[in-house]
Amino acid sequence: MIIIMEPNATAQQIETVVKALENKGFKTVLNHGDVMTVIAAIGDKRLIEPHSFQSYEGVRSVKIIQEPYKLASREGKQEDTVIEFSNGVRIGGLEKPVMIAGPCCVEKDLDGLLQVAEAAKEMGCQFLRGGAFKPRTSPYDFQGLEEKALEYLAIAREKTGLLVVTELMDTLDLDMVSQYADVIQIGARNMQNFKLLKAVGKCDKPVILKRGAAATIREFLLAAEHIMYNGNDKVILCERGIKGVDNTSTRNTLDVAAIPVIKKYSHLPIIIDPSHGTGRRYLIEPMAKAGLIVGAHGVMMEVHHDPENASSDGAQSLSIPMFKDIAKRLNKLIGRIDYDNKHSMSMV
Amino acid sequence: MIIIMEPNATAQQIETVVKALENKGFKTVLNHGDVMTVIAAIGDKRLIEPHSFQSYEGVRSVKIIQEPYKLASREGKQEDTVIEFSNGVRIGGLEKPVMIAGPCCVEKDLDGLLQVAEAAKEMGCQFLRGGAFKPRTSPYDFQGLEEKALEYLAIAREKTGLLVVTELMDTLDLDMVSQYADVIQIGARNMQNFKLLKAVGKCDKPVILKRGAAATIREFLLAAEHIMYNGNDKVILCERGIKGVDNTSTRNTLDVAAIPVIKKYSHLPIIIDPSHGTGRRYLIEPMAKAGLIVGAHGVMMEVHHDPENASSDGAQSLSIPMFKDIAKRLNKLIGRIDYDNKHSMSMV
Amino acid sequence: MIIIMEPNATAQQIETVVKALENKGFKTVLNHGDVMTVIAAIGDKRLIEPHSFQSYEGVRSVKIIQEPYKLASREGKQEDTVIEFSNGVRIGGLEKPVMIAGPCCVEKDLDGLLQVAEAAKEMGCQFLRGGAFKPRTSPYDFQGLEEKALEYLAIAREKTGLLVVTELMDTLDLDMVSQYADVIQIGARNMQNFKLLKAVGKCDKPVILKRGAAATIREFLLAAEHIMYNGNDKVILCERGIKGVDNTSTRNTLDVAAIPVIKKYSHLPIIIDPSHGTGRRYLIEPMAKAGLIVGAHGVMMEVHHDPENASSDGAQSLSIPMFKDIAKRLNKLIGRIDYDNKHSMSMV
Amino acid sequence: MIIIMEPNATAQQIETVVKALENKGFKTVLNHGDVMTVIAAIGDKRLIEPHSFQSYEGVRSVKIIQEPYKLASREGKQEDTVIEFSNGVRIGGLEKPVMIAGPCCVEKDLDGLLQVAEAAKEMGCQFLRGGAFKPRTSPYDFQGLEEKALEYLAIAREKTGLLVVTELMDTLDLDMVSQYADVIQIGARNMQNFKLLKAVGKCDKPVILKRGAAATIREFLLAAEHIMYNGNDKVILCERGIKGVDNTSTRNTLDVAAIPVIKKYSHLPIIIDPSHGTGRRYLIEPMAKAGLIVGAHGVMMEVHHDPENASSDGAQSLSIPMFKDIAKRLNKLIGRIDYDNKHSMSMV
Repeated sequence: MIIIMEPNATAQQIETVVKALENKGFKTVLNHGDVMTVIAAIGDKRLIEPHSFQSYEGVRSVKIIQEPYKLASREGKQEDTVIEFSNGVRIGGLEKPVMIAGPCCVEKDLDGLLQVAEAAKEMGCQFLRGGAFKPRTSPYDFQGLEEKALEYLAIAREKTGLLVVTELMDTLDLDMVSQYADVIQIGARNMQNFKLLKAVGKCDKPVILKRGAAATIREFLLAAEHIMYNGNDKVILCERGIKGVDNTSTRNTLDVAAIPVIKKYSHLPIIIDPSHGTGRRYLIEPMAKAGLIVGAHGVMMEVHHDPENASSDGAQSLSIPMFKDIAKRLNKLIGRIDYDNKHSMSMV
Repeated sequence: MIIIMEPNATAQQIETVVKALENKGFKTVLNHGDVMTVIAAIGDKRLIEPHSFQSYEGVRSVKIIQEPYKLASREGKQEDTVIEFSNGVRIGGLEKPVMIAGPCCVEKDLDGLLQVAEAAKEMGCQFLRGGAFKPRTSPYDFQGLEEKALEYLAIAREKTGLLVVTELMDTLDLDMVSQYADVIQIGARNMQNFKLLKAVGKCDKPVILKRGAAATIREFLLAAEHIMYNGNDKVILCERGIKGVDNTSTRNTLDVAAIPVIKKYSHLPIIIDPSHGTGRRYLIEPMAKAGLIVGAHGVMMEVHHDPENASSDGAQSLSIPMFKDIAKRLNKLIGRIDYDNKHSMSMV
Repeated sequence: MIIIMEPNATAQQIETVVKALENKGFKTVLNHGDVMTVIAAIGDKRLIEPHSFQSYEGVRSVKIIQEPYKLASREGKQEDTVIEFSNGVRIGGLEKPVMIAGPCCVEKDLDGLLQVAEAAKEMGCQFLRGGAFKPRTSPYDFQGLEEKALEYLAIAREKTGLLVVTELMDTLDLDMVSQYADVIQIGARNMQNFKLLKAVGKCDKPVILKRGAAATIREFLLAAEHIMYNGNDKVILCERGIKGVDNTSTRNTLDVAAIPVIKKYSHLPIIIDPSHGTGRRYLIEPMAKAGLIVGAHGVMMEVHHDPENASSDGAQSLSIPMFKDIAKRLNKLIGRIDYDNKHSMSMV
Repeated sequence: MIIIMEPNATAQQIETVVKALENKGFKTVLNHGDVMTVIAAIGDKRLIEPHSFQSYEGVRSVKIIQEPYKLASREGKQEDTVIEFSNGVRIGGLEKPVMIAGPCCVEKDLDGLLQVAEAAKEMGCQFLRGGAFKPRTSPYDFQGLEEKALEYLAIAREKTGLLVVTELMDTLDLDMVSQYADVIQIGARNMQNFKLLKAVGKCDKPVILKRGAAATIREFLLAAEHIMYNGNDKVILCERGIKGVDNTSTRNTLDVAAIPVIKKYSHLPIIIDPSHGTGRRYLIEPMAKAGLIVGAHGVMMEVHHDPENASSDGAQSLSIPMFKDIAKRLNKLIGRIDYDNKHSMSMV
């Protein structure tokens, strides 16, 4: 931690800050510049609230040197985390990137869901996604089928062998969702719902944590840290777009660079969601490829058996024929990436 | 709803959209421009998911004309909502703006809390705020005293007569929090935690709903709509800063104009939080005044008996003497605004 | 400057950075943490490009402690800059806030301009604003009357005694504009047009520098530094709104807090433009008041004799009767602020 | 154009707007909803300033249906623009993507520049980039060698046959820059310097137009329209990153999706700049690949013979050996893309 004093800070004020730091177990080094004094405080950040030093008289600003995510960071664990499922599917590290497909929201037409699941299976997907509880900006929109949806997903799993990914929105539903899901998803709007993070941190299911629409990488990794700190280290991060300067051409700005950035700073797997990340069907294929080529461990896509009548997000859903077409080309790219990884060549 | 077709949309594609609209009970009007055709669909948006039309072939974009917040909007209810408490305090409309003060987080020093509460009472505040559960970006930071904090707040209420405002973070805690709180606060990070909005929508306590850090006015009012739709119309909105282009000089960009904007589009009371909105102690007074002069129905400020040792947000907390000093000047301004309101003069 | 090394930086890499710093005349202090080493470099930042150190092997990040604006900063000059015009008008410091009014763009109807100028004079404005060259997002929009507009402004000055503010868009036009203008305005889109900043830095007219729509406070003050570094210290800053999360309710997000922030870090005068800052007529009055109450040295408003037929920005222009009405109330507020300043009372 | 009236707009107000539209040559269609009336105005937007209608009493908002870029849009010209240089290099459409490399800024070490140019040539680049005039946020940073730099670039061109790309910052320098450059670059900070756009619009050199750091796609294409409207249709767009929610991990957020979006709405070539777009050396390779795989017509990279001593942007510059290494892999990817394009297969 670096504490920068105001140019007109008094010797007394500097002394007070130094004393407070030393009382809290920090070693301090003073650097007197021509204009300002800078105090370097060396020690364990977790013992204190660093920004509390900003409240001392004469302090201009406090800069944190070492980020407070220890469990999620590469510094704490150098080797990549690879999560393995009971059916042998693996995600993370140099494993072959995975594909996750399915409708935004499970609807009352079970047959439609099964058609999507079979297409997903056929095209080599490992996971079926589908929402049982839908976070909807408007209360007048369809809110999800709840347990009925979970039952449908379980039927689809039984028929196809795909693993089931579904979103949890409330701690109250954790037990029910855990019964059905292979992977629990935490949505972007709940990335800082700390009670929910704590709850999934105490369960034993892998978690897909989606980046909040305005979250920095630091906030994103700290959200993962909440889950890991509570005991669950099977966290899969998901980039799904942030609020950018333009929301007319695309729904969000997909931050593709976040993937290599996160791979540098964290050992956790990271996947990409080009459906929510763009909100436009024609952008799903190119942006899925962009994510894969920069090193994403997987890609998540919305597929619906009848997008024009989807109860949510139809505009960003692929129909089954479109999905098959795109998946064929993505598989080709995934094959190349996997080949390069296995032969220690540079990516693609 | 306006549906804009692609320049090269076929007559068949236009026909399909028109039919689909008519099947859903809309009246349609076609406007053929030189380049594009525009379909105006007249009817009740709530019956359909308008963006589902974006998934039809040949559709370029869908524009919603009438926002889907009906309960929160001025169109639905013209007169201002004024919320009255059992002790006669009133908030909203042309009522005198209120003041809410207290620590970010209730700590184990009950005496400190009582000092703050007494100063708040002395300076004319109507509400005492304090967190029992703290949403913290890092899991290593202090997470709150939970029920103990609620008990302390109740003690402070008994001693001062101030109404208690405290944050609810999880539906599981609703019963406990309701027992102690006069007003339930929903934090910015939970603005789109729809399960939580639904839960407080079913209770009978007034709710302070804070604007999410990247929420549009539309998303903010839709979050209020979720609460109202579930039965609770006592919603107080709170502007607390959004993510802006600069996060070094201030923690957030306080969107002061949101106050008159919301007063135009909604009948709900709206208050301002200059403490979280700026994250800088020296900005609390000017920004509180800015909020009041543009018409905020109240101002919420963080006050701590010992900011340098606060367990959270010390840098943006006022000490008791600073608070008294500032409150004196805010009261002067509030007095003028109240005078002008009562005498039908233009504000200040 | 603080240089943070990667956790796995070698002793050799650290040594290389230290040597390079010392070769450039910096004194260095090493702080070895448990995980990372931090090098504090003490000396004059202007001699080097600090970010060049980010290109050394083993460097994680470089943090600048002291901002490189020396001329614009309070650290370089403690007392407020007050700019005085030949007719005695003064702006800055504790001087009475000024009012600037006029059309976005001077049009061919001289009589309309004179009506606005006379209303501005009558209501106590000190400055008349009007564009001769218009930066327009679309090439199909009206681009301004050029020299004819400048002549009209000069006529209006002669008739009313108001000082003329007009925008310069190209170094080529500097001589012409200087002949007519009392104050040269640099628009938001040109805030980082460094050639233009240099050119006005070499002239002797006061300059109103508008904040870029996505500029940080640091970038804004560095743009002012460009002008001052080239010899012109009569710079008036102008907050006019930044791109925020919502551009449907308002055109920009007016960053009201920027005013007290800039008054803390710089000695330069700072004014507010609620017309461009909101793009909505009904928000001009409240946001002008917000700016004034937090300490702006002036307010700039668009006024047009016939807004419905304005060649640009009609939606955010006040008609003459509206302007008079609002100006009356702003004068009342300005009077109170001036009284408080003169009697050393806290603002308003 | 769609004009949405306020819910309480009077028949008289609606009539006034309709009359005004008809006087300006628009055909109007009224759509009366339950709550609001919507007026569709059909005709040529260029004849009027559409937002001027927002200034009429009773108007809630004005929505533009057809974007006012006609020359830059696909609607105006369906086939891709391909720009051909005298040496046969072609950019745009289904041509093989190009590579542009060189230092941010040309420095006084001619030999270093030649080393970079030769490496660029060797690796198959078509263009050498280098700044003669540098837009620098701080006036204390190196501002460029001006004409000397242009002479050096010409020497490098002579030795290698590479085409020269260099930035123009002021209309005053256009003649000088035109004498040396094969392609004139307009920097992100000047994207809305309309005088400069007009000037390059009147010259006959191809122009690389960089996207402003906070520009929407609409504003970007309108800036291109300014150049084309003035007579120069050889515009190459360049995505170089926008301001995002996180500026600590990366300098900007590279908006990769902007490439397929722009290819849908415009016929102009679009390239990507991963150096400025990320500001981090380790991200150049992955983000160049991301750009290429989504269809960019070229990639621009900063390469310096001695990044640790570069006068600007060292941290995002590749050294020559790094560049060669990366270029080898980019060439492999470009080869595949070119193969797929030539054989009408889906991209990669």
